[in-house]
Amino acid sequence: MKVVRTINEVRNARKLLPGLLGLVPTMGFLHDGHLSLVKRARQECESVVASIYVNPTQFGPNEDFAAYPRDIERDLTLLNATGVDLVWVPGEEDMYPDGYQTYVNVEEVTKVFEGAMRPTHFRGVTTIVAKLFNVIQPEKAYFGQKDAQQVEVIRQMISDLNFNLEMVVCPIVRESDGLALSSRNTYLEIEQRKAAVVLSRALRIARKLFQSGERSAQKIRRVMEDEFSKVELARVQYISVADPKLLTELDEISTAALVSMAVYFGKTRLIDNTILGKLDPTLD
Amino acid sequence: MKVVRTINEVRNARKLLPGLLGLVPTMGFLHDGHLSLVKRARQECESVVASIYVNPTQFGPNEDFAAYPRDIERDLTLLNATGVDLVWVPGEEDMYPDGYQTYVNVEEVTKVFEGAMRPTHFRGVTTIVAKLFNVIQPEKAYFGQKDAQQVEVIRQMISDLNFNLEMVVCPIVRESDGLALSSRNTYLEIEQRKAAVVLSRALRIARKLFQSGERSAQKIRRVMEDEFSKVELARVQYISVADPKLLTELDEISTAALVSMAVYFGKTRLIDNTILGKLDPTLD
Repeated sequence: MKVVRTINEVRNARKLLPGLLGLVPTMGFLHDGHLSLVKRARQECESVVASIYVNPTQFGPNEDFAAYPRDIERDLTLLNATGVDLVWVPGEEDMYPDGYQTYVNVEEVTKVFEGAMRPTHFRGVTTIVAKLFNVIQPEKAYFGQKDAQQVEVIRQMISDLNFNLEMVVCPIVRESDGLALSSRNTYLEIEQRKAAVVLSRALRIARKLFQSGERSAQKIRRVMEDEFSKVELARVQYISVADPKLLTELDEISTAALVSMAVYFGKTRLIDNTILGKLDPTLD
Repeated sequence: MKVVRTINEVRNARKLLPGLLGLVPTMGFLHDGHLSLVKRARQECESVVASIYVNPTQFGPNEDFAAYPRDIERDLTLLNATGVDLVWVPGEEDMYPDGYQTYVNVEEVTKVFEGAMRPTHFRGVTTIVAKLFNVIQPEKAYFGQKDAQQVEVIRQMISDLNFNLEMVVCPIVRESDGLALSSRNTYLEIEQRKAAVVLSRALRIARKLFQSGERSAQKIRRVMEDEFSKVELARVQYISVADPKLLTELDEISTAALVSMAVYFGKTRLIDNTILGKLDPTLD
């Protein structure tokens, strides 16, 4: 496994990689969720490239950019063991040199939930992903369903800007008690960690309601809110039952709905989601 | 010469083109300025692709999108005669399908002159150029110095978003009396056409002043304004003496300056420019 830093180095190393190439973009501090993307890429592609970059432009001024957990040595060991060919670990001077001023904006699907709470977040995500695509020029790029809105935003960008690649979305990976894996889980204190299982529990309840015929989005939201209200440590930021592509809130669910939420435990903000009307082996 | 319309068609046709590929993006209604780009691409590249697309997103709501001159048959004849291999003539439904919502924004160098006068213009330019780059994936892309700010905006986008290609900028092509070629010249009435020679005359005067040692940007602007004030049909929108890269207005010229202007003749808006401190065989 080769590890490179500058854009020139990664371009040169990429040229030497044979066949269909899969890219797994990450912010490091890897867990089994990330590694599930690498494994999928390894199955589907002749060459696998991972990037590790905590992208400053997707953090708001009062968010956890400086505190975001980092452990590059451990990350490289895990990527090597999982079969990555090339790892790109750019520095900020490579990604955003002096005078940097270009941003990619997806204008509609960024306006709701995560984008509404974090106004410049998706501008940072789409910009860095466009840069990664242009430098690596992968045939396939792997993203986790954990960040459901991010998936739809990037899907829209790929389509609108005509990136010539296939996006592969991999299922959420969960702890045995149901908590979705996230690098931010390390922020949780013991009692918060126990309480955090309420996210997946609320999603399971939503799925059961839907499977038993409930189609009122408002009813599903309310039952989920009730579930959260029983957990003192949980502070709900939003609970959404939305169209899976347009991300607009639904009144009535016809065939499918993205159920997603953001919940604070102390200062730690967790997100989770499921798509009603679609199998979700991680919850059913 | 092959002519295609859809994105799938152009992607498939592009794959069959051998060797180094040069792209000449145009809005059609071609003149010798465009053809000078094609000729340069023909000299430097094994394969040459031109695009013809009057891009709606770079026109403001009160601008001349509907009236912009079009003559696709003549354009194709000229491109064929000049040695283009593939022409892409997309429709609006190919470029901006329903639900389209992604834009590329270069934030700083778009704020001044043309960008200040036409607030969404460069957003449209960078978005369509990014799309053309992603679909065609050229090794070289050819642009005219006539649109001086556009050149700097696209240069910045290529650098910031890490497009893996070389931008080639070709000199302005002028009529024998000095008027820079432009598709919009066809809008000019006979008296306006005669009067329009004042743009290149003012640029020549600026160059003479600079060559004789004048370094005050304000002095150069004022002498140019005086020249325009003698021409009744000309209504100056702006005259700029700016840093050639940052595009910020200068007080004192150290080594180089971009002199540019926009001038109305009736409803027709013409632009022209030269770079002081650099040879300009089209004016000296």
